[in-house]
Parts: sequence; structure tokens; C-alpha cells
Amino acid sequence: MESTQFPSLEAIKSAAERIKPFVHHTPILSSSAINEIAGCEIFFKCENFQKVGAFKARGAANAVLKLSEEERSLGVATHSSGNHAAALARAAKVAGIPAYIVMPSNAPEIKKKAVKGYGGIIIECEPNLQARETTLEKVVEETGATFIPPYDFMDVIEGQATCALEILEEKPDLDILMAPVGGGGLLGGTALLVHLMKPEIKVIAGEPEGADDAFQSFQAGKLIPQTGPKTIADGLLTSLGKLNFELISDLVEEILLASESEIIEAMRLVYERMKIVIEPSSAVPLAALLANKEKFAGKKVAIILSGGNVDLGKLPF
Amino acid sequence: MESTQFPSLEAIKSAAERIKPFVHHTPILSSSAINEIAGCEIFFKCENFQKVGAFKARGAANAVLKLSEEERSLGVATHSSGNHAAALARAAKVAGIPAYIVMPSNAPEIKKKAVKGYGGIIIECEPNLQARETTLEKVVEETGATFIPPYDFMDVIEGQATCALEILEEKPDLDILMAPVGGGGLLGGTALLVHLMKPEIKVIAGEPEGADDAFQSFQAGKLIPQTGPKTIADGLLTSLGKLNFELISDLVEEILLASESEIIEAMRLVYERMKIVIEPSSAVPLAALLANKEKFAGKKVAIILSGGNVDLGKLPF
Repeated sequence: MESTQFPSLEAIKSAAERIKPFVHHTPILSSSAINEIAGCEIFFKCENFQKVGAFKARGAANAVLKLSEEERSLGVATHSSGNHAAALARAAKVAGIPAYIVMPSNAPEIKKKAVKGYGGIIIECEPNLQARETTLEKVVEETGATFIPPYDFMDVIEGQATCALEILEEKPDLDILMAPVGGGGLLGGTALLVHLMKPEIKVIAGEPEGADDAFQSFQAGKLIPQTGPKTIADGLLTSLGKLNFELISDLVEEILLASESEIIEAMRLVYERMKIVIEPSSAVPLAALLANKEKFAGKKVAIILSGGNVDLGKLPF
Repeated sequence: MESTQFPSLEAIKSAAERIKPFVHHTPILSSSAINEIAGCEIFFKCENFQKVGAFKARGAANAVLKLSEEERSLGVATHSSGNHAAALARAAKVAGIPAYIVMPSNAPEIKKKAVKGYGGIIIECEPNLQARETTLEKVVEETGATFIPPYDFMDVIEGQATCALEILEEKPDLDILMAPVGGGGLLGGTALLVHLMKPEIKVIAGEPEGADDAFQSFQAGKLIPQTGPKTIADGLLTSLGKLNFELISDLVEEILLASESEIIEAMRLVYERMKIVIEPSSAVPLAALLANKEKFAGKKVAIILSGGNVDLGKLPF
């Protein structure tokens, strides 16, 4: 894996111990109805039940807890309008330090409310990437806070890897482990952990057809940025990170695509048969599995349901 | 309790063993966010995760399994357009016997589909109570099937009581146990079990203001039938049964009412904070609790989430 030094299994196990008091050990659920439809045995790791409603709580907690005393005293900062913003604000609150969150002025009120609810300090900026980055630089300069990126960051990847660790500890005899891919923090951490702990398990990703930069990058063998993504899976719009691509191109077996209607159908199946609330991004791996049943026939498959933060007034069914 | 002979604790424990292979031992979940809002500690018994998506699977399984060989060979019958129809069809399928389900011709297609999915034989009738009863009588006469009523029936009440048994085995130090009340099968069984096993725990019911026959009957000390119910909690429209009223009037501490907006608000809270899918009826006890916080301050309260069968295209938010 090039010359980059990625976390060891011991380091990931230490991260799991470190964040244990601050995150949930989420349950693994099954549905005999969905198994019958899918033709394989599926174990759903329910990160929709995680603190802040998404796996992001893991990486943010790990990154904050690994700061030195001195760094902590000055707080943390990031730019995000999604789950990472809330996760970092909460991790900082738990650690008793300030969190500066740069958010575009047009970010949904509900996202701002979540960040404020965890005591995060919101700094608004123009709604474009350049303004976000410039504003963040200024905040970091003025406050001395440490920038915690959402996915392209070693301590965040190490934290997200604890999810797969819990899965393998509970279900060691899997054939396949699936996760969605957006920036690649969850998928990268998952692939790393499986490689270190049980490399015979295949890691397969699900990605929306309408935001397929990871698929394109994986095929081309080089990072191809996302342009004009269009999908209901709003957690997967972003471009794959550099560290994440390195892990994914080396350790992931395959990236399978799912169409919008397949994502919505899979999402509906989870609501109706499992009676749980997930966000569209969570449905992408199941959608990809159902679109490629022959690959999974008779296998034991774990799927990470990445989060449950969805606008209930705008469900697609 | 008059002269009626209700099931003993031993009988309910036997019922739990009897139905064990055919129903889920459902989990108990908590939400620190909801506890904070409520000012007490709440344990949600998730019967929305139960087979057929509702506690009804328990009573139906118990009733079918208690039939004699001879009775079984002729099958079972009921009239219902709700969860009991699906639950009885499934229990019969598991036992390998026919289930004749009388349904009004205007029953929703989704309900008919559920019954057919479990192999139930649907007999349609005019959409009024008299037609349902006459048609059922005819079916029973022609087939020799045993009529299994949805709630006013001892073996069904005994089966529903196994839900509270699981709660008390897992959380013996409760102060209060809450259930919704419609026909009273779940509430009656719950009150009976608590009375037999741990009478110091108070049983409190939640009922919609728009279908308050149990509240009226409880106050008056006599059974007052439901007329013109109007509530989103479609599992609670029916009149309280006779056996159920006997149990409830003797063993329930109090029936608290919830308005439609309180029910919807509580339902939304469960979706947003717990990330689980419940039907409106399930939200009624939490709604009643939140409307009467002072009664529950600092207490340990279990709430039965009775089911999760909801039309996702018609969520009230």
C-alpha cells in the first residue's frame, strides 16, 4: 500500500476502547423476508441507531480524543453541512471544548439546529467550496482550533474502522461486507479493518449511479473527482478522499452501482420489512446487492446501514 | 375479579414457551433524547419488530397452537381487516392448517395482500358489522373451522400477556407499564400478567381522545360501546371486549387520553430520535405520558410499541 502508514489492527482496537464511552455499540439486525427476496443471508449493522444518527460519531470522537491537551484547549473546526458537522460538534461537547463549524449560508435549518443543539459555533459563508475553505482557514488562524476533515484524515478513518471491528467480532464467519461510498471514510476504514483482521472476507461497496466517482476512480486506477452528482443519497455526493482512495483501490473487491429507483426500492424494503428509519445513503449497498443477486447467492453478507438522518416529510414513497 | 377464570401465571409462562418458536423475543430500546424530553426513564418494548409487524402474532399463535388435533384439521376463521387477520393467517400457515378470513369488500388492497401472502383464504362481504358476522357464521358452519376472535377471547389474551412477561423478566424494577387500548387484548393481558407477577407496578393505558370508549367505560364502571371513532390510531377504533373490560376495570390504574396532535407529535419523536417505524397506535401511550409528565417524573416506565404497520406514503408529517 504505497508508503502511507495506515493504522494497525492494534491502533483500531485502541480507538474502539477510546470512543467506547461516547458512542453506541449498535445492534446487528436481520429480516427473514429480505433474506428471502435477496437469496442470501444479510446482517444489517444499524449505524442509523448510532449517536447523532450516523457512523460519523465514531471518527469525530476518535479524532477529538486523540488531540493533545494543548490542542484540545483551542478547540476543533471543520466545514460541513452534513452528519460530520453534528458529529464533530457533539464530540467536542463531550470533550468540553469549542467546535467551530463553517456552514454555507443556504444550509438547511434542520442541519444548523443539530449543530447548535450540540453547542457548536456556526460560522456562515457563501455557498461555494472556495468560500468554505477560505472561511475555515480564517477561523483556524484566529482561534488556533485544529481542523478535523470529514473523511480524508487518518484519525477519522481509524474511528470509522471500529464499526467493521464490531461486525467481525459479532459475525466472524461472513463472506462479504458491504458499505456505501461517498468520501470513503467508512469504506476505507472498513476495508482496512477487514484486511488486517480477516482478509478472506470480501469488501464490496455500493455507490449511486448518479454520483459514481469512486466507481470511475476504481476502474481508472486514479482519483477522478466527482462533478455534478445527482442522487437522492445526499450523504454520498462528495468526492473520494486521497487516503480513502489508496485504501479502496488496494483493498476493496468491487464497487457496484445502483440506480435511483433501485435505491428508493431498497429503502422502502428496509422501512416496510425491518421497521427502521434509514437515510437514502444507507439503502445503496442493499440496492446494489439486489441488482446483482447472482454475486451474493447463498452468501453471508453484512451491510452497514450508515445513518438515519432523513427529512421525514420528504420520503420518496 | 367476578367469577371469570383468567389464566394463571403458570398458564401465561406455558403460553410463552408454546409460541416461542413462532414469534420474536422483541428488543427493549431506549432514547436518552426522549428520556430528557419526558423527564423519566422509558423502556420501549418493540412489538413493531414482531412477526407480522404487531403483538397480534402472539395471541393468534397461542390460540392456534392450543387447538386440539381435530379442531386444527378443520382450520380457523375470523373477521378482521387489521393486524389480527394477518396474524391468524400466519399462525395457521405455520401450523399447516387453513385460515378463513372474512374481510369487508372495501378493505385496503395492502391488508388483503398481507393475508394472501400468508396463505389465508379471503371471503369478502359487505362492509358492515352485520354482514361480517353473518358471513363468518356461514363460513364456520360450512367448514367446521374454529372462530378465533381478535381480542375478546381467553387464549388470545393469554398470548398477548407474554409480551409483558418478557418486559418484566428483562426489567423487573419498573414503576409503570403502559400499553395502548383498543379492543383491550394487549392491555388486558398486560394488566393480568403484572397483577400476577409484580402487582406493585402500575399499569396505565393510553387511548386516543377520538376513540375513548375504554376511558368512558372505565369511568362509568360499565362497558360503553365505541360510536363514531375518529383517530389516526387505526388499530384502536374498535370497542373494548367484555373479558378485557373485566381485567382492565379491576387491574388498570388509569386510562390517559391523547389528542390527535399529541399522537402525531409523539410518533414523529419516535421516528426522529429512535429511527424506528411505528404505526400511530403505538405512539398513543407516549403521547399520553408527554401530556401528563408530572405523573411520570423520575419514574422507570416501560411502553409497549404495539406495531409498525403503517402506510409509508401517508405519514402525518
